Amino acid sequence: MKLGKNVVLYKNAKIGTNQLIEDFVILGKPPRGFEDGQLPLVIGDSPVIRSGTIIYAGNVIGDKFQTGDNARIRENNKIGDEVSVGAGSIVETGCDIRNRVKIHSNCFVCEYTLIEENAWIGPNVTMTNVLHPPCPAFKSHAPVQGAKCCHGPIIKKNAVVGAGAVILPGIVIGENAVVGAGAVVTDEVVRGCVVTGDPARVVKKVEDLDCPLGFYEKGEVYSWRKS
Amino acid sequence: MKLGKNVVLYKNAKIGTNQLIEDFVILGKPPRGFEDGQLPLVIGDSPVIRSGTIIYAGNVIGDKFQTGDNARIRENNKIGDEVSVGAGSIVETGCDIRNRVKIHSNCFVCEYTLIEENAWIGPNVTMTNVLHPPCPAFKSHAPVQGAKCCHGPIIKKNAVVGAGAVILPGIVIGENAVVGAGAVVTDEVVRGCVVTGDPARVVKKVEDLDCPLGFYEKGEVYSWRKS
Amino acid sequence: MKLGKNVVLYKNAKIGTNQLIEDFVILGKPPRGFEDGQLPLVIGDSPVIRSGTIIYAGNVIGDKFQTGDNARIRENNKIGDEVSVGAGSIVETGCDIRNRVKIHSNCFVCEYTLIEENAWIGPNVTMTNVLHPPCPAFKSHAPVQGAKCCHGPIIKKNAVVGAGAVILPGIVIGENAVVGAGAVVTDEVVRGCVVTGDPARVVKKVEDLDCPLGFYEKGEVYSWRKS
Repeated sequence: MKLGKNVVLYKNAKIGTNQLIEDFVILGKPPRGFEDGQLPLVIGDSPVIRSGTIIYAGNVIGDKFQTGDNARIRENNKIGDEVSVGAGSIVETGCDIRNRVKIHSNCFVCEYTLIEENAWIGPNVTMTNVLHPPCPAFKSHAPVQGAKCCHGPIIKKNAVVGAGAVILPGIVIGENAVVGAGAVVTDEVVRGCVVTGDPARVVKKVEDLDCPLGFYEKGEVYSWRKS
Repeated sequence: MKLGKNVVLYKNAKIGTNQLIEDFVILGKPPRGFEDGQLPLVIGDSPVIRSGTIIYAGNVIGDKFQTGDNARIRENNKIGDEVSVGAGSIVETGCDIRNRVKIHSNCFVCEYTLIEENAWIGPNVTMTNVLHPPCPAFKSHAPVQGAKCCHGPIIKKNAVVGAGAVILPGIVIGENAVVGAGAVVTDEVVRGCVVTGDPARVVKKVEDLDCPLGFYEKGEVYSWRKS
Repeated sequence: MKLGKNVVLYKNAKIGTNQLIEDFVILGKPPRGFEDGQLPLVIGDSPVIRSGTIIYAGNVIGDKFQTGDNARIRENNKIGDEVSVGAGSIVETGCDIRNRVKIHSNCFVCEYTLIEENAWIGPNVTMTNVLHPPCPAFKSHAPVQGAKCCHGPIIKKNAVVGAGAVILPGIVIGENAVVGAGAVVTDEVVRGCVVTGDPARVVKKVEDLDCPLGFYEKGEVYSWRKS
């Protein structure tokens, strides 16, 4: 275990082998209404937790987890293997983030977001979960994933969400779909489609993407993701 | 008083009763050109100051103040009661933030912003205060709130600013108005109107908003805010 | 030297005279795959490094460098004199940031970005460097600055990038050009032009900008920058 300086480890943080935990990290912080040690934090083997990261108690996180500096992960999330949450990004509560998801820097992942395997979320992406915030019904009703009023977006397998995009509540981004940088996504994105703009509209199919530098043949740009 | 680990308390920080101050918080930090203790920091009763929050000296803040992790509040702001400033959000100097305002996560609230009672600012919202930055006149002239060239936006009572919106300098968002997620607001938003897009345009009245899950009748979506 | 509390100084951090280094700063942190002290960090005279800033080893930074709270600067960047990197902003690796550049708060400056002298980057700006992320060719090929597929944007001398703008990979923002707040820049911006919108389009020349408060004559708004 490599442990940085001034690390704050709360009780009941269970961390696997081969950890790198950098300076000023906080692990297992009790959320509002809980005492130190009441909720467990479980992190698998070989995590790399970079400086200033804050991970609350009540999370179950798989192997090879990585964070960027100052990432913040609130309570009650389920996070798979080989996931990374980038510098300055926030994951709120109740999210389901599956294997090999990469969330880049300064993102906001709202409560009850579902992000499926291999999805890639660019820097500064914002997810939302309430159509008319701050709706009192948000707190008084059980969350309904994928429902347009309440709550979190669903980002399906292999989807790519470009930098600075904003995803409206309950929106489904289909499998292998691509959301262009800066897009504001107000409607479902069908699998394999590319959307851009505000509001986001389909501009092409993923199979029609072209690589200007010739690393990939036309139609093969994301072919490596489908295996 | 519940005090976290490694808290840095500068001189002249006056904090009310019943505080929760978490790890790595900095309170009363002297701004540029000031010595430790020269400017007071006043925070009312029952504050919840989450990990890594930095609050400069020279602020006067009411009761029941809350911050998210790593919130940063610079000097010379006036902040009312029951205000919250979310994780990673920045409040610059000279702002007037009134009772029960909620500023969500990763927001940037520029100098001289006025946010009136009950306004709700979504995650990743950016406020601006200079039409042609970095204008030398910004520093050499007294700020003029609501003037289109210099300076801060005015967000009126009960207004809602959706996630990822960008507000141009001196823009007024009217009472009970709603700015859609991702909107770029370049003109005044009339009270009770809903705007979306880049540039933001009126798409409907707040009274015409519909709740797809049926929590509210048509026309009643924000009725609970007007009381 | 004024040194805050709980500062973490790694080996091989060479910092000039007249430093102000605030609380919880980390200087010279070794990047992935490097040991403490293996890479130098060089910072010139009179730096102001604000609370919570993290600067990795492997950077060469000029005189009068300033950071805002919680700024993060990764390895292998070349940064000139009188540069500032604002609160919460992230500078990734391999960037070339020249004299007197100002990067405001909560920005994301991606790998291999070039920002020339005097350029001004507003709050919450996002730069990108891969047309089809997460492209495997990004890692396996040498970066090509200004190439549309891989990699970093080029922001030329005196350019201004407004708050919340998103810059697509390899885009060139011309000398003295202005990118409006919230713009999504998908094509080259010709020198001296003003662009706004998503996608960004030319709306006028910089020489046609008007100062509504009369600080500058029509056509003189950015005249002070060209000297």
